[in-house]
Amino acid sequence: MAYQQKIIRTLRCKNKKTIGVLAKLTTAISSLGGDIGDIKTVSTGELHNIRDITVMFDDESCLNHILSAIDGLPEVTLEQVIDGVLEKHLGGKLQLLPRYPVHTLDDLRRVYTPGVAAVSKLIQDDPSKAQLYTGIGKTVALVTNGTRVLGLGPIGPVAAMPVMEGKAALFTQFTDMQMIPVLVNTTDKKEFIQTVKNISCAYSAIQLEDIATPACYDIETQLDKQLAIPVMHDDQHGTAVVSLAAAINACKLVGADFKKIKIGQLGLGAAGSAISRLIMSYTGNPVLGADVKKYSLNRHEKMGGKLASIEEIMKKCQLVIATTGIAGMITPNMVRKGQVILALSNPHPEIAIEDALAAGAAFASDGSRVNNLLGYPGILKGAIDSRVTRITQEMYLAAAETIALRAPDKELIPDPLDPSVHQAVARAVAQAAIASGAAGILLDNDYFGSDEREAIT
Amino acid sequence: MAYQQKIIRTLRCKNKKTIGVLAKLTTAISSLGGDIGDIKTVSTGELHNIRDITVMFDDESCLNHILSAIDGLPEVTLEQVIDGVLEKHLGGKLQLLPRYPVHTLDDLRRVYTPGVAAVSKLIQDDPSKAQLYTGIGKTVALVTNGTRVLGLGPIGPVAAMPVMEGKAALFTQFTDMQMIPVLVNTTDKKEFIQTVKNISCAYSAIQLEDIATPACYDIETQLDKQLAIPVMHDDQHGTAVVSLAAAINACKLVGADFKKIKIGQLGLGAAGSAISRLIMSYTGNPVLGADVKKYSLNRHEKMGGKLASIEEIMKKCQLVIATTGIAGMITPNMVRKGQVILALSNPHPEIAIEDALAAGAAFASDGSRVNNLLGYPGILKGAIDSRVTRITQEMYLAAAETIALRAPDKELIPDPLDPSVHQAVARAVAQAAIASGAAGILLDNDYFGSDEREAIT
Repeated sequence: MAYQQKIIRTLRCKNKKTIGVLAKLTTAISSLGGDIGDIKTVSTGELHNIRDITVMFDDESCLNHILSAIDGLPEVTLEQVIDGVLEKHLGGKLQLLPRYPVHTLDDLRRVYTPGVAAVSKLIQDDPSKAQLYTGIGKTVALVTNGTRVLGLGPIGPVAAMPVMEGKAALFTQFTDMQMIPVLVNTTDKKEFIQTVKNISCAYSAIQLEDIATPACYDIETQLDKQLAIPVMHDDQHGTAVVSLAAAINACKLVGADFKKIKIGQLGLGAAGSAISRLIMSYTGNPVLGADVKKYSLNRHEKMGGKLASIEEIMKKCQLVIATTGIAGMITPNMVRKGQVILALSNPHPEIAIEDALAAGAAFASDGSRVNNLLGYPGILKGAIDSRVTRITQEMYLAAAETIALRAPDKELIPDPLDPSVHQAVARAVAQAAIASGAAGILLDNDYFGSDEREAIT
Repeated sequence: MAYQQKIIRTLRCKNKKTIGVLAKLTTAISSLGGDIGDIKTVSTGELHNIRDITVMFDDESCLNHILSAIDGLPEVTLEQVIDGVLEKHLGGKLQLLPRYPVHTLDDLRRVYTPGVAAVSKLIQDDPSKAQLYTGIGKTVALVTNGTRVLGLGPIGPVAAMPVMEGKAALFTQFTDMQMIPVLVNTTDKKEFIQTVKNISCAYSAIQLEDIATPACYDIETQLDKQLAIPVMHDDQHGTAVVSLAAAINACKLVGADFKKIKIGQLGLGAAGSAISRLIMSYTGNPVLGADVKKYSLNRHEKMGGKLASIEEIMKKCQLVIATTGIAGMITPNMVRKGQVILALSNPHPEIAIEDALAAGAAFASDGSRVNNLLGYPGILKGAIDSRVTRITQEMYLAAAETIALRAPDKELIPDPLDPSVHQAVARAVAQAAIASGAAGILLDNDYFGSDEREAIT
C-alpha cells in the first residue's frame, strides 16, 4: 500500500486561563488540516496553562498555516515547536544489553573464557543445543535492501533503518523474543539471497521487509526453500493476514457470508496478491483480480485467481479490496448498492469512506487502522515456538481468524498495542502448525493455557 | 594462542563447623589439580556451614578424583555439583530491548509510522544523519566463520556463538556502544568478504574474530581497503596491543630499554605476526622471527622482520615472546641469563614461569593474564569516536602504551574489569587518530577531559 509521510510536531502553547481557549486553538489547528493527537498539560499557573499539543500534518506549508493561525489568537502564545520524533530517534531505537554484567573474575570465567569453551564444545557435539544456550533460539533477522520503503520508494537500506528499528523494537516489546535489523546493500536478487543464506545461522526466522516487487517474490520463495527456518515477507503475508481479518469482520457487520460471496481484489502487488491468495485458501473460491502489470496478472492466475477488469469487479463483487496506491481510483458511480469496500491504500484511500457510503456501499473502511503490527510478532513467535521450517497458509489463516475474533464489537480489528492479541496469535499459529503436522516439537497445555512471560510494560 | 577448555563447576559443600575443615577441603581440591575460584557462604547453621566453591579443572576425570576425595572427608558432605556456566548461557548472553516501549498511539506514531517516514527521508537526503538517528553510529559487528575458535579449531560459526556473545556482552558493558554477533557460514574467502561487505552498512566498525590463518589476513586487508569503516581482526591486533603492553612493562621491571634491546618472536601466526609488527612500529628495529610455516616467514620478512632459528632467537634476544601453541617448547637449557621471556600460549605456556626463572631468566610470565578484553573495547570506541576509516599502527601503539601505563606497580597489565582502563584506551586511540590526521571529526576537550557515560554497573 502506498504511503506518504505525515509530519509530527508537538506545539507547546501557553494559553490564557479562560473558558474556550483550548477549543479555539484545536479548532484553528484542525480546520487547517492538522490532525490532533495527544494533548498534555505541562504546567498550570494563576493566569495561564502550558500545554503540549501533538499535531500531524502532510507538509511544512500546512504547519506554517497553523503557526500563523496560532499567532492570530490573542489568548495563545506559541512557546516552542518540538520535533518529538527526531528526539526518539537519537541514538537509535534499540539497545543491546549484556544479560549478565561482569563484575568479578568469577563472572568473567563463566560468561567468557575459560567457561565459554565448554558451551561451544557442547554445541559442536550437538548443534541443536544452540537453541538453548545462545540467543539464536529467540532471535529473528529483519532483512531489507531498502528497495521499497513505505511510500518513499527505493531509498536504500540505511535510510530504511528507522523503519527497521521501529519494527524490531515493536517485535521485541510484544514477544519474549528479539528482532535484529540486517541491512543488505544490494539490489541484485541472487546476491541478496546468497548473503541472507550466509548469515542465516544466527537466527530462528527471517522477516523480509520493504523489498520491491517482483524481486521480493523470488527472494522469499528461494530463501524459504533453501533455509530450514521460517521466512516471511511481511509486506505480503503480514499485510494479508491483517487485511483478511478486517475483511472477515466487515462482512460479518453487514451479514454477508464471507465464504460464499464474490470477492474482488484491485491491485495485485505484494499486498494485494498475498491478500487474494489467503482469501482463496480461506474460502476455496477464486478471487477476481485486476492490475496493470502483466506478471502480477500471471501470478494471480497461477495461484488460482481469475482476471477481470476494474469495472467488472466493481459490478460483480460484494466485497472489493483495493491496494492500488492510487488515491480516488474508485469513483462513487462505480459503487454498487450493498457492497463492502475496503480501500486500503495509505494515507489516501481509493475512495473516502463517506463517499462510498453515500454512493450506496453497505460498509466501507480505509487502511488507516489496518496495521501490520497486529500480525508479524505473533506469527513469527508461533512459528518459532512450534519449530516449523516453513509458515503455511493454514498458519496465516489461523492468525487472521484470531485477529478477527479479538476485534471489539463493531470494530474491524483489535488494538495492536494490546499484548494479549499477540500472545493469542502466536498460540493460534502454533496450534495450526501442530494440527497440520508441520510442527517440529510438541507444545504442551502450558503453552496454550497459561500466561507467558509478560511483554515489557 | 592455543587454548584448551577448562571446565568450571560449583561444588555446594556442607562443612562441619570445626576449625580447619575449609582448609582440608581446599587442600584436597587443589592438590588434585582443581583451580579454586570464588568461595561463597550460602548459609550458616549451628553445626554446619554450606559453601559454594567454584573450581576449574582440565577434564571430567579430574572432577571425579576431586569428588572422591571430598567423599573421603568425614566433615564434608557434597550437596550438589552446579554447572554455573551453562546456567548463564540459557537463552544467550545478550538481550535486545526497545529504548522506548510503546504504550500509546502517540508513542506508536513517533517510534513507528507515520513519524518514522520523516526520519527515513532525512537520512535519504543526508546519509550521514544515520549516525545520529539510528543505532548504526554506536554498533559494531562481531563477525566470524568459526574456522579457529579458542583452542577448539574449526568448530563452525554456530558453535562459536557463545564466544561471540561473550565478547559482544563485554564490549557493550565497557563502552557506550554495542556489539552484535554476525555468523557467516562460509569458509570461502571471497564469499566471506562479499557477504560482510553486503551487510556492513548497518555498523560503524567490523571486528573479525576466530578466523583461521592464512585466510584471516586477506579478509582483513580486503575489507579494510574496501570499506569506509574500521575493520579489526582481534586475534591479530587486539592480542598484539595487549601483548606489547605486557612486554613493555616486563622490560621496565628488569630495567631493559625496550627500544634498544634485541627482540625475538617465536611463532608468527595471527597473534605472533601482529605482535612483531607492532613492536617494529614501536621500536623501529626488526624483530627476529621463527615459525614452521613458509608463508608466515614470508609475511614476517615483508613487514620488515628478520628470520632466525629458534636457537638463534633464544641465544641472541633479550626479550623473547612465544605464541607457538606448543607447551614446553622452550626447555630450560635454552634460556639465557637475564632474559625476559613471555611464554603466552594458553593454557599451557612454552615454558613454566618458575622453570624459566630457575634457568636464569630475569623475568618470565605466561599468557594467563594477557586478556584481549583489555584491548578491543577501547580501540574500537576510540576509532569510531574519531571517525577514522581505518585503524593505524599509531592507534594500536597508543592503546598499548596506555594499557602499559595503567598497570599497577610490578604488574604487567591492569585489571580488564576496570572501566576506566577502557575509557583511557578509547581516548588515547582517538588522540592518536587526531594527531596522525586520520580522524574524521575534531573531538573537543570534553571528550578527553570529562568522564563519559558510566559503563553498566
